[in-house]
Amino acid sequence: MGAVMACARQRSRPTPARRPTTDAQKSADQPASPAEEERTPEEGGYGLDRTFCRHAWALLKVMFPSLGSFSVFQLVVLLIFSGSEQYVVYWVGIIPSRYYQVLGDKDWNAFGTLTAECLGLVLVISFVKGSRIYISTILYVTWRQLVDRFLHRRYFTGINYYLLNVMDSRIDNPDQRITQDVDKMCKTLSTMFSQLIMAPFIVGYYTYSVYVNTGYIGILSIYGFFVVATVVNKVIMTPIVTYVVKQEEKEGTFRFKHMQVRVHAEALGFQGCSAVEEHRCNRRLSALVSTQMSLFNRRFMLTVVVNLFDYLGGILNYLVISIPIFAGLYDDRTPQQLSALISQNSFVCMYLIFNFTQLVDLASSATDVVGCTHRVGQLVERLAVLEQRWKSSPHTPDEDTSGGPDTCLMPQRPFLTDGSLRQQIVYPERLKEGGYTVSETERMLHYLELVQLSSLADRCGGLDSEVNKNWYDMLSPGEMQRLFFVRLFHHRPVFVFMDEATSAVSPDMEEILYQECLRLKMTLFSVGHRESLTAYHDWKLHLFNDGTWRLDPIEHAAGGICP
Amino acid sequence: MGAVMACARQRSRPTPARRPTTDAQKSADQPASPAEEERTPEEGGYGLDRTFCRHAWALLKVMFPSLGSFSVFQLVVLLIFSGSEQYVVYWVGIIPSRYYQVLGDKDWNAFGTLTAECLGLVLVISFVKGSRIYISTILYVTWRQLVDRFLHRRYFTGINYYLLNVMDSRIDNPDQRITQDVDKMCKTLSTMFSQLIMAPFIVGYYTYSVYVNTGYIGILSIYGFFVVATVVNKVIMTPIVTYVVKQEEKEGTFRFKHMQVRVHAEALGFQGCSAVEEHRCNRRLSALVSTQMSLFNRRFMLTVVVNLFDYLGGILNYLVISIPIFAGLYDDRTPQQLSALISQNSFVCMYLIFNFTQLVDLASSATDVVGCTHRVGQLVERLAVLEQRWKSSPHTPDEDTSGGPDTCLMPQRPFLTDGSLRQQIVYPERLKEGGYTVSETERMLHYLELVQLSSLADRCGGLDSEVNKNWYDMLSPGEMQRLFFVRLFHHRPVFVFMDEATSAVSPDMEEILYQECLRLKMTLFSVGHRESLTAYHDWKLHLFNDGTWRLDPIEHAAGGICP
Repeated sequence: MGAVMACARQRSRPTPARRPTTDAQKSADQPASPAEEERTPEEGGYGLDRTFCRHAWALLKVMFPSLGSFSVFQLVVLLIFSGSEQYVVYWVGIIPSRYYQVLGDKDWNAFGTLTAECLGLVLVISFVKGSRIYISTILYVTWRQLVDRFLHRRYFTGINYYLLNVMDSRIDNPDQRITQDVDKMCKTLSTMFSQLIMAPFIVGYYTYSVYVNTGYIGILSIYGFFVVATVVNKVIMTPIVTYVVKQEEKEGTFRFKHMQVRVHAEALGFQGCSAVEEHRCNRRLSALVSTQMSLFNRRFMLTVVVNLFDYLGGILNYLVISIPIFAGLYDDRTPQQLSALISQNSFVCMYLIFNFTQLVDLASSATDVVGCTHRVGQLVERLAVLEQRWKSSPHTPDEDTSGGPDTCLMPQRPFLTDGSLRQQIVYPERLKEGGYTVSETERMLHYLELVQLSSLADRCGGLDSEVNKNWYDMLSPGEMQRLFFVRLFHHRPVFVFMDEATSAVSPDMEEILYQECLRLKMTLFSVGHRESLTAYHDWKLHLFNDGTWRLDPIEHAAGGICP
Repeated sequence: MGAVMACARQRSRPTPARRPTTDAQKSADQPASPAEEERTPEEGGYGLDRTFCRHAWALLKVMFPSLGSFSVFQLVVLLIFSGSEQYVVYWVGIIPSRYYQVLGDKDWNAFGTLTAECLGLVLVISFVKGSRIYISTILYVTWRQLVDRFLHRRYFTGINYYLLNVMDSRIDNPDQRITQDVDKMCKTLSTMFSQLIMAPFIVGYYTYSVYVNTGYIGILSIYGFFVVATVVNKVIMTPIVTYVVKQEEKEGTFRFKHMQVRVHAEALGFQGCSAVEEHRCNRRLSALVSTQMSLFNRRFMLTVVVNLFDYLGGILNYLVISIPIFAGLYDDRTPQQLSALISQNSFVCMYLIFNFTQLVDLASSATDVVGCTHRVGQLVERLAVLEQRWKSSPHTPDEDTSGGPDTCLMPQRPFLTDGSLRQQIVYPERLKEGGYTVSETERMLHYLELVQLSSLADRCGGLDSEVNKNWYDMLSPGEMQRLFFVRLFHHRPVFVFMDEATSAVSPDMEEILYQECLRLKMTLFSVGHRESLTAYHDWKLHLFNDGTWRLDPIEHAAGGICP
């Protein structure tokens, strides 16, 4: 037998810094992660500072690869459509004012022409608005693809993803940055980009229109009204945000409590915990409900104020236009023309207020974008640093070139990729382009039978059907471990490091798996609690709490399992 | 030694039907769950049928315990405020029309009176609307408390929660029904209740107003427009919903893929899986993006149509009022009066369309309420059935009366309740009202020291500080198991069934834990894979695949651990 039972842990892999470890691991893995000391100083806040500019610049280069790239073209088209939309919006906005005129004049011909024109305008604005929204979503998808593919490239270069997730504590949740933060950044940016560029023109034009209709007093009233409304809103809103967060937290703990009861129902049932658990659930509910009540009490004031300003904004334009009217400035107009003027002024004032409100909302979108840009930018920079580091260090293996039977590590919970059953077996290789020979397929089926997984091939609809279900849901822990051994038999590595690799299979199956490994002449290093493992190994490495160790030969009884 | 090592599994507990089991469990637990056959026939769909009426009636009795109850009072107040709101909405809606009149007349006095009146109206509507919203949230909270406390009572009666979660596959996710479905049902119902009752009156009144202004043609135009808009929307919307669902599914698999890579980064790094994983991640991204593109392409049409009908609705009222104007019906009005009429008609038409739209939206809210009512109602009924069943069966233990040292089951992953460290130790008892004596506290601290958890008391800020963090996040699996033994030493049950209860602690700690159990004269039944367990037991029960079993005495070497 060419097997050695040894704890090769300390040498072969570093401490996983953030995952819960069993006590046995804890005592063995004393030294702290080397990355602990070098925490990033940027973590405190995500401001609009030089770091942001650096991150934004790096990402913009990815989002706009060149001046002639598709995303630049899309951005230009988006700006053209946004401009056109604003032009049409004005003409649609003054439709009512024109109806006041023609209906007041009882001008049948003008009414017909106006209605035809309006129908045309409605068609145009629907199409232009729809197109503008469509183009901004296309831009979002394009950006997301560019950034994500760029990140994938870097993330999977060498062992970057390994270093980032296991060795390095500077970048939290890289997976969320790649999936969620990139998404949010691109989505928000694509909607606010055109708004930001159009805003000064829109506000300028409508301010001018209000000035023409109502003079300086009109502008001052509207600007003043807007500032007061925003400040009052902000003052009332701020404490409420705290209560919203609190409410979600309490909602979370209430749900978690019930989830716990469900998961542990068996243990609880046997210990007769009904009374305590009902009491604790009711306490959680009461805490949640009283937080909700505090929130709703405070929100009452907010609702009243928001409505107050909404309705006040609605009548403000009549007060504003009344000044020049009563001052006699419009005495030369017919009553119909006056109604048209009032209606037009109403639209212009409301649209100005609306655009101000949108600008305030943009501020909170901008906060999102800045935050996401920082998070994604940090990831990009860190990936570059790590790449530099492992390239310059001769001791770190560049695993990119491996994939053959150099060596193999088997964890307690094996990794399953997605795709067909054959993809699982040949993993980490990609499926061969040309397909597999009959004898290769036969050997795979043989191994599936050996580990009693033949039924799995049936469940999957054969070796090659794409399995759309989640593999982790399909297999029990023991089936995962057995499937992992099929992978092992397929690749036949020379050295195998097993970390509790048979913890979820029966001792009989364990024997089958180990015997096949030995038959295939693999050299095995196992970490495990089960005494039965000694049967397949020749040496045992003892590690002691004081840091010392001892390597003993294992005496085998004649062909049997000890004890 | 009074210990017996035996697999008491088959007798003492049934198969957990929905949780992944290890292979070892699988081969032992061959028989299918008895609940498998009796699937509920109701699961197919949640319709507005007799079952719904039964469920709704049962829940209404909980939500309105008596005619004089608080929730009945709240509902009456809600209806009063909703009615008042609609009355004020009308007066606010015709404000513009009155401004057209006074501004057209250049009547300074009337303008002043109107503005004062408008400010009053704005104050009143803001307050009434705010109050109506506030009362409906209060009603929601009251209902939620009533229903959840009622469910808690039933759920924790006897071993109902155990039967429901472990034995019974008829009711899926009872925890979600109690936390989310009840919440959604009460929230939706509280907002739609008043709307539903007011709707016929509002539609009736505004239809009458349109009729007065514009005759039958106006009503027919608006009703016709609304029907066409709804049907077209529905037709375009239906296929898009499918794509929204698809998009979320693909987004989910993309995130899951990255989460997997993160969790398994270590194993992947050692196997050199970069190339495959980058390829798979890019494939997931492409699948997501192409689904998004299909969705956005289809949504373009929807956006255009929605906008088209929005804007058409906006000019429809001018077309409608034009008919009586050109027919000469309003020839006796001054131009100012005509403008006021046009403006008033505009509001009345738009509000009618708005209310129709709201009624259509109510339909989808109603679907939510019906679904949730079914789900919660099923839970209520099932709990009653289960209670009946275990009350009539003398073989099912009523664990409600237990809590002392009758017997104790220790699972592999122990259950932690919430609250202080002392609550964890005395669990499943509730904390004593009068507090604990010095000697009791000393004994708890002694046991914490014995299992090397003294530092935990420091981390928690003593035995009695309320711990707001999640206990599962605070402790490693091994610490959980050791804490569970402290609980055991505190309660000192006579019989203990251990299911891999020491799987996450070192063999040294295992010895400490078992020796203390034996010192406290507990009789132990253990299920486990570790050979070392034999040291603490006198008998071993072998179970064979063919269903036979054998009970062998264990021969102990003198005082040591075998082998």
